[in-house]
Amino acid sequence: MTPDGFPVVGIVGAGQLARMTYQAAIALGIGVRVLAERPDESAARVCPLVDIGSPDSPADLHAFAARCDVVTLDHELVDDEALAAIEAAGGIVRPGARALRFAKDKLHQRTEFAKAGLPVPAFDEVRAASDIEAFAATHGWPVVAKAQRGGYDGRGVWVLDGPAAAADLVRDAQARGTALMVEAFVPIERELAVLVARRPGGECVVYPVVETVQRDGICHEVIAPATVPSEVAEAAREIGLRIAELTGVVGIFATELFLVDGALLINEIATRPHNSGHFSMDACATSQFENHLRAVLDWPLGPTDLLAPSVVMANLLGEDHESLAPRIPSAVALPGGVHPHLYGKEVRPGRKIGHVNAWGADAEETRARAVQAAALLTGRTAIASAASLPVGRTS
Amino acid sequence: MTPDGFPVVGIVGAGQLARMTYQAAIALGIGVRVLAERPDESAARVCPLVDIGSPDSPADLHAFAARCDVVTLDHELVDDEALAAIEAAGGIVRPGARALRFAKDKLHQRTEFAKAGLPVPAFDEVRAASDIEAFAATHGWPVVAKAQRGGYDGRGVWVLDGPAAAADLVRDAQARGTALMVEAFVPIERELAVLVARRPGGECVVYPVVETVQRDGICHEVIAPATVPSEVAEAAREIGLRIAELTGVVGIFATELFLVDGALLINEIATRPHNSGHFSMDACATSQFENHLRAVLDWPLGPTDLLAPSVVMANLLGEDHESLAPRIPSAVALPGGVHPHLYGKEVRPGRKIGHVNAWGADAEETRARAVQAAALLTGRTAIASAASLPVGRTS
Repeated sequence: MTPDGFPVVGIVGAGQLARMTYQAAIALGIGVRVLAERPDESAARVCPLVDIGSPDSPADLHAFAARCDVVTLDHELVDDEALAAIEAAGGIVRPGARALRFAKDKLHQRTEFAKAGLPVPAFDEVRAASDIEAFAATHGWPVVAKAQRGGYDGRGVWVLDGPAAAADLVRDAQARGTALMVEAFVPIERELAVLVARRPGGECVVYPVVETVQRDGICHEVIAPATVPSEVAEAAREIGLRIAELTGVVGIFATELFLVDGALLINEIATRPHNSGHFSMDACATSQFENHLRAVLDWPLGPTDLLAPSVVMANLLGEDHESLAPRIPSAVALPGGVHPHLYGKEVRPGRKIGHVNAWGADAEETRARAVQAAALLTGRTAIASAASLPVGRTS
Repeated sequence: MTPDGFPVVGIVGAGQLARMTYQAAIALGIGVRVLAERPDESAARVCPLVDIGSPDSPADLHAFAARCDVVTLDHELVDDEALAAIEAAGGIVRPGARALRFAKDKLHQRTEFAKAGLPVPAFDEVRAASDIEAFAATHGWPVVAKAQRGGYDGRGVWVLDGPAAAADLVRDAQARGTALMVEAFVPIERELAVLVARRPGGECVVYPVVETVQRDGICHEVIAPATVPSEVAEAAREIGLRIAELTGVVGIFATELFLVDGALLINEIATRPHNSGHFSMDACATSQFENHLRAVLDWPLGPTDLLAPSVVMANLLGEDHESLAPRIPSAVALPGGVHPHLYGKEVRPGRKIGHVNAWGADAEETRARAVQAAALLTGRTAIASAASLPVGRTS
């Protein structure tokens, strides 16, 4: 507990999600301690209570948990057996090891979701290249191979066009000890996401369904609300709530969805605050970070309405090695306004170093403003006009 | 500068205003260093860069300024000669010593405002009790005596009903070395406030004019927007902008106004973020704290629109010595939602320990929700119904 009787939430990992969770915790008086690998990590730079240690080290995790009232996660790459042991010893870990496994182990997730009747692409386990060939014989080439564990932001996913590519991948994966699975290639029209916060007793709130704009497997923009028929949005909400119940997750979690021929398929889930929910920080009644804290502390959840007709988030992906600071004035000067959220990370090409939120009455103008601000902040010179911005998947 | 090339803003004082400014700085990547008197102060508890020192010590202020790119203030009780010396030596202090004097020295402020034709109550300097009697002979009893410097939240203000009270006060004040002034007693109908942010070059943005509800000289609620005729709101904005120009203030500043017979009189000004602007934190396009940072860094200012038809802030004034933590769930469970902002201060009766913001479509329901949340958070059992809430000054 803090000296004034508030709970201390421990966050394993000190990336930008921990940083933004800490920002929300300040208002609520909640204590936050982060487990960082290095003192210059995003959250460790802004939060005074920092333990240095590894999310892979059971000893570090146990010592960390002993200093916190509740343990939660900045990322999924945490030793889940250690988390389970902390829970077994009476520690509070939210999300718990059981829910976390759904996010970490894709084969487990697909198997359980399919059993529960949730919509997932056709899939199978891969033990040899011949498993991929057999799968393709039924579902056709190309197929999508995935690492069962550890992939994110397009890493750990391969589109295979035939037996030769399958053989190469399986050989490389076996050499690295990477277990694989295979899924049917889905002709994606658009990608959606839905964010749910769930308390231990099962109370949930759902955020407005959003559209995510992906390029090269990386989310570039999030458009809230998604302009989809209301029955599609309702189906997305329903999937989010069913996953919440099935996994028993506590906290915020995100479900990424493919829209294919008007039907939804589950792409990925994340059992933590998520990039697709950053729109909630400025123009939503309660941010995902505040609701994550409320959920893991078993406090009542806050409303999730949008405070503007249209909210758009654009990610800042590094283009060079220059500080963003001198670029802020031109970005925040855009008429209508934008709100940068910078992560305190060294800028490197392709690295996610922040995001910017914009909102307004007109969806197209709002999106153009967010995208232009992101271009100005990252130093991109070619700025797409609103009309030329594609909606949906571009690669 | 921070390691990633961002400016470091130094805040003299580590109260709740510094704490909330720090929260806003995290998103913008700005470094913040606070000068605290004790390590357990509100902002020192959440910000990693803390210097321990006194705002009255020129040596502490000079050493602090040397570690920051820009110096700004959490409160006005700072050695202004030291600030002026830092400026003279090339340091950047915003607001500067010249603007600060308008907030610290009420006689100077009234004299300069009256010269500029700004509406202030009739006033005079007090050197002896006879000065008060002479003033009352013209303006009538009661009169309002004020300490020229150092008063706030109703402290340093005395309503005097006749010569005997005047003589007592002047004797006590002279014994303590407190310089006095006297003002006409104003039959206040309502109190308004207007918040302006100003950049060094003169660019300003103005927030919606608000109504403040005062009891015993302490602000209990702020209602945004104020329900006053548009010409009154326009006059308030105009006064704010004229004071900005006259004082040359940089940063956020607040002007508190009396509404008397449909006309406005200037009550007080504060050259820093202000309690009357806390409504801007959740339901305004840009919070006063973000615009304060942008202004002192000479970055473009953000829009100030409300994101909901009605926003109400209620202050949390301690009722006992109990932690607020166990009271949060019942407050945040109120239908429609509320957002507490807690200051990390030990609870004591009468102490300002936080505030809560609520917003919604209906002004009366929103206000009732904010007031009820404040009652639940502070442990008050008697909760006023919306209909019984007085608007305007109650004491």
